[in-house]
Amino acid sequence: MKLEIKTEAGFTCPIPIGQYPNILLAHGGGGRLSHQLIEKMFLPAFGNPALEARHDGAVFPVPQKPLAFTTDSYVVQPLFFPGGDIGSLAVNGTVNDLAMCGARPLCLTAGFILEEGLPMETLWRIVRSMRSAARESGVEIVAGDTKVVERGKGDGIFINTAGVGAVVSERPVSPARVRPGDVILLSGDIGRHGIAVMAAREGFEFETALESDCAPLSGMVLDLLSYGIDIHCMRDLTRGGLASALVEIAEAARLHIEIEEAAVPVLENVRGACEILGFDPVYLANEGRFIAFVPDPQAKRALERMRAHALGEGACAIGKVAAQDAGLVTQRSLIGTTRIIDMISGEQLPRIC
Amino acid sequence: MKLEIKTEAGFTCPIPIGQYPNILLAHGGGGRLSHQLIEKMFLPAFGNPALEARHDGAVFPVPQKPLAFTTDSYVVQPLFFPGGDIGSLAVNGTVNDLAMCGARPLCLTAGFILEEGLPMETLWRIVRSMRSAARESGVEIVAGDTKVVERGKGDGIFINTAGVGAVVSERPVSPARVRPGDVILLSGDIGRHGIAVMAAREGFEFETALESDCAPLSGMVLDLLSYGIDIHCMRDLTRGGLASALVEIAEAARLHIEIEEAAVPVLENVRGACEILGFDPVYLANEGRFIAFVPDPQAKRALERMRAHALGEGACAIGKVAAQDAGLVTQRSLIGTTRIIDMISGEQLPRIC
Repeated sequence: MKLEIKTEAGFTCPIPIGQYPNILLAHGGGGRLSHQLIEKMFLPAFGNPALEARHDGAVFPVPQKPLAFTTDSYVVQPLFFPGGDIGSLAVNGTVNDLAMCGARPLCLTAGFILEEGLPMETLWRIVRSMRSAARESGVEIVAGDTKVVERGKGDGIFINTAGVGAVVSERPVSPARVRPGDVILLSGDIGRHGIAVMAAREGFEFETALESDCAPLSGMVLDLLSYGIDIHCMRDLTRGGLASALVEIAEAARLHIEIEEAAVPVLENVRGACEILGFDPVYLANEGRFIAFVPDPQAKRALERMRAHALGEGACAIGKVAAQDAGLVTQRSLIGTTRIIDMISGEQLPRIC
Repeated sequence: MKLEIKTEAGFTCPIPIGQYPNILLAHGGGGRLSHQLIEKMFLPAFGNPALEARHDGAVFPVPQKPLAFTTDSYVVQPLFFPGGDIGSLAVNGTVNDLAMCGARPLCLTAGFILEEGLPMETLWRIVRSMRSAARESGVEIVAGDTKVVERGKGDGIFINTAGVGAVVSERPVSPARVRPGDVILLSGDIGRHGIAVMAAREGFEFETALESDCAPLSGMVLDLLSYGIDIHCMRDLTRGGLASALVEIAEAARLHIEIEEAAVPVLENVRGACEILGFDPVYLANEGRFIAFVPDPQAKRALERMRAHALGEGACAIGKVAAQDAGLVTQRSLIGTTRIIDMISGEQLPRIC
């Protein structure tokens, strides 16, 4: 779907390019040009009754469930990369954060910060990508905002999305529910998003094509929940990667997490790139992978269910939770040694999402 | 309160300034420094159970009312101006958008896009201001996100807030409910925010101090609703000012709006600045003013109620809705002539909010 956007023959930008080939400051001024951008681009792309009411906010019925509410800003560079772009990332990232709360995503808002001079066609490609991603997850973009900053005061486009979801898991999904003995399931191979974006940024090429794993996880998560899996905690593995997610949960739950290096799937070209560049795959960002902490007796069933999904084909159990050494994450290496996994202190790859 | 933040003697930034006087890229990397920023600054400032759960999103109970959901990004320059700053603006602006939907604000998210090199103390001043503004409106900041972009790819700080509110008005508040004969109430004098920010940016000084009107409108709006006023539509007068709000509503409702220039309050120094600079006050941004469309028989009561609030002392009726010339806004001038008010096509004052 993302490739379709880039190559589509009948692509036409709804704002007359001849007249406004680039974003002007006035597109963020709240006047006629702002109005045109909303009426001609955002409304047709995201159209739904809430947006069409042209009000200051969207109103929607009560879902009769506890609500989940989350936000993320997206500043990835480059804007387009193999397997996705800032638009699909902005939708999937927030959909995934809602899924991690055990919630069915209901609706999103979108806030755009545009740099003066951004080509209108670039904006349109991104908006179309957001539209596709939103449809894929069954969420609507119900309210939005556009600001424009002067040339040199931004970097093309930054997008913020916030999302509201209805919590469908019957029991809380939270680090506080992690228990000794829980099995940690990982939904697939790690590190592709980080390496794909880095390669697109630096112009590296691989022998075999490498795409970001950018994808919506709500389908798989909702399926696990409806299948009766008592997921104690989940986390998607974005910035900071598997390592940071594990450390955050170990610290919040005050428990010891043990993982097996051999059990964590890493594609050959991702591993190769890491060796050359000195990266560790456990710190690389992912945009379509998550870990789930489940009770041991349910782990096998949960894993089978995950593997039945296209996005979870490579799911596996990577470790377990223990009581001693509270707050610590350790990894047993291929050769049997154990090392402590900590958060990275600096910055491995900036602007990855 | 905003002044208190700037002058407070006991001001201490919770991040050791000696160690990290400025924002680094690593503060947005999802690793240890990101973690420190969250644990030492955002959690203590905004602390509430949802944030303290340290999860990907906040979960809160269903309010048993329809929900309003809105977002805005804030890119104002300068970051601090008389009467407010980007932090109070980011909270009040989204609170006001929820109020305009007839909703009681429940909770906000905050997304920060920081430029590498932003002084840590600047961030801390802004975070404190957000905390004060959130407390004033009784909302909690329940989820957040921080990204850092390289020096020269941002402009200090951009903030996005999204908000969820519980709709308390029994009937819809929307342009579709505006009717011929409705009276248009304005909550006070216009143009102060635009002129205050412009003056701070350009270093202008006025004989009498001029402050932004930045303030939360939810108290006054909820009071009008609980008093039984059947508000047909509301709009806060931000970017594009009174003129754009009126034109948007006239176009959406397909009705004719007539206002009286003499009835629209403008402070003497705002009017003077407009004359010198060639601005028209009806296009200037406000951050604590709104218009309400109410049925004629309720207008007097509604106005009295607005005037009972500190933020509505200068409230007045500025015009009415007619059926003919659908979609048009006209203004009768002080000397009795009539002119058409349109949206501004270009950009009067960029980066005003």
